[in-house]
Amino acid sequence: MSILVVGTVAFDSIETPSGSAERVLGGSASYFAVAASFFAPVRVVGVVGEDFPQEYIDLFTQRGIDLQGLKRERGETFHWRGRYHEDLNVRDTLELHLNVLTGFVPRLPEAYRDAEYVFLGNIDPEMQLEVLSQLRCFRLVACDTMDHWIQGSVEALRKVLPRIETLVINDSEARLLSGDHNIVRAARSILKMGPKTVLIKRGEYGVLQFSDSSVFAVPAYPLEEVFDPTGAGDSFAGGFLGQLARSRDSGQGGLRRAIVYGSVVASFTVEDFGLKRLSSLSLADIEERYQRFVELTDFHT
Amino acid sequence: MSILVVGTVAFDSIETPSGSAERVLGGSASYFAVAASFFAPVRVVGVVGEDFPQEYIDLFTQRGIDLQGLKRERGETFHWRGRYHEDLNVRDTLELHLNVLTGFVPRLPEAYRDAEYVFLGNIDPEMQLEVLSQLRCFRLVACDTMDHWIQGSVEALRKVLPRIETLVINDSEARLLSGDHNIVRAARSILKMGPKTVLIKRGEYGVLQFSDSSVFAVPAYPLEEVFDPTGAGDSFAGGFLGQLARSRDSGQGGLRRAIVYGSVVASFTVEDFGLKRLSSLSLADIEERYQRFVELTDFHT
Repeated sequence: MSILVVGTVAFDSIETPSGSAERVLGGSASYFAVAASFFAPVRVVGVVGEDFPQEYIDLFTQRGIDLQGLKRERGETFHWRGRYHEDLNVRDTLELHLNVLTGFVPRLPEAYRDAEYVFLGNIDPEMQLEVLSQLRCFRLVACDTMDHWIQGSVEALRKVLPRIETLVINDSEARLLSGDHNIVRAARSILKMGPKTVLIKRGEYGVLQFSDSSVFAVPAYPLEEVFDPTGAGDSFAGGFLGQLARSRDSGQGGLRRAIVYGSVVASFTVEDFGLKRLSSLSLADIEERYQRFVELTDFHT
Repeated sequence: MSILVVGTVAFDSIETPSGSAERVLGGSASYFAVAASFFAPVRVVGVVGEDFPQEYIDLFTQRGIDLQGLKRERGETFHWRGRYHEDLNVRDTLELHLNVLTGFVPRLPEAYRDAEYVFLGNIDPEMQLEVLSQLRCFRLVACDTMDHWIQGSVEALRKVLPRIETLVINDSEARLLSGDHNIVRAARSILKMGPKTVLIKRGEYGVLQFSDSSVFAVPAYPLEEVFDPTGAGDSFAGGFLGQLARSRDSGQGGLRRAIVYGSVVASFTVEDFGLKRLSSLSLADIEERYQRFVELTDFHT
């Protein structure tokens, strides 16, 4: 029941109203992998440069993450610099250096090709298709994307969607992809593009899940301090797929509980910069907050 | 277990991306009263002008609403004209004619002075204090306000807050009143101003409830069509206090279920212009959607 993630491993330089962090470990694959590693073994496919420090490699290996698929190329690691507004839902990208990511083609090591749970992080949909073509068999593939690919590579993205189980996107991306402002109609229209389930991330407002037979809505865990929203969405996806892999329950109840686990893990991520909070976390912390999440949302007792 | 509401009874002229409506029945007391009337007897204190039509009086009386406290004054009824953006969370006020509302001082008929559940709709906090001084005894008072009063009459508002049980405001108002952008800290700081419970309305994102001992988060009911968000907040308050009056259960579980009933009633309100949807509703419709709300949010089974 291993989990495979293909995505970016990056340096993030982040400014938020609470402070700043320089060249911390970031990228969709990093957040996803660390989040999922509390639940099941995780394998990473990605690329870093010669400047990628041992300290960050150690962070992955301490979490038991398999890095056989993490290539090291000549050049510098992908670097993103961004600034969040007082309203943390809004951020500006100040710098974006693709570096070794340019021309990167994911290659799955032989042992990775029968991964049961797969997360296609937010990369070029052509690369997502490439990964799908290398998979021998799988149980569930989830996929993320962003406005950049919806606007520039929608044809490739439309080829990805019928081949995955779950699309994980935020509300503005769902509106963009569907062309519909109403989020319920947007989700219905995306379901027609192929995925069996659409998970719509709404940041501090929670998550909506749509399938043909069910709608599930869950709030986010309310926090007194949000230091850095970076990686919340990928942490959510990691907790979600991690719990699915751990429970092997992909019935509606199992999916819903996995969404709550994803929300719980994401709520830890944003409590400190980068992966700082997640890397000091234990599964017991996650289970405890899951119980607090139950108390937060329960109105039956 | 009667419910008293003091607030505005108005003509609303509304434009939304889905259409428009001219001089339909609106105002905080109207929405609240109709919403609450499905659960318990409701009494209204407010004022209308000579132009207020019998048709709207009939709408109230058909719902069994007691209008002994609705004064008719010489002049025209309060009239609001507004336009909603594509993003229905944003609206512009195009016209505001206070008319008979100018100088209105609420007077509670003798029979109203021992109302058990009281809602102080969004009016001048000085008027809210006036109502509180006329009440002989009560079980629970909830109160709404808006940016206009927070900015212009905060001293009077700060006198209201220690005298009520529940403050019902939206998230931007909570930020304004507390001076804190983080909604959890904002709520904690408002609790220190006096109310036992703060209900924070987040429109299509649902409701947060804060008290000293508990936090409750509930999403909104997802709708494929939102025609007109006007009155959603007052309908929410009506369903909330209505259910509290019906159940007489103001324990934490009872409060939470009342919040869900409020959300359910509000979800009907926005499905058509003005009070059109609420006035064709039955309690069975509300109970059915409450069950669908349970299914929407449940992750235990």
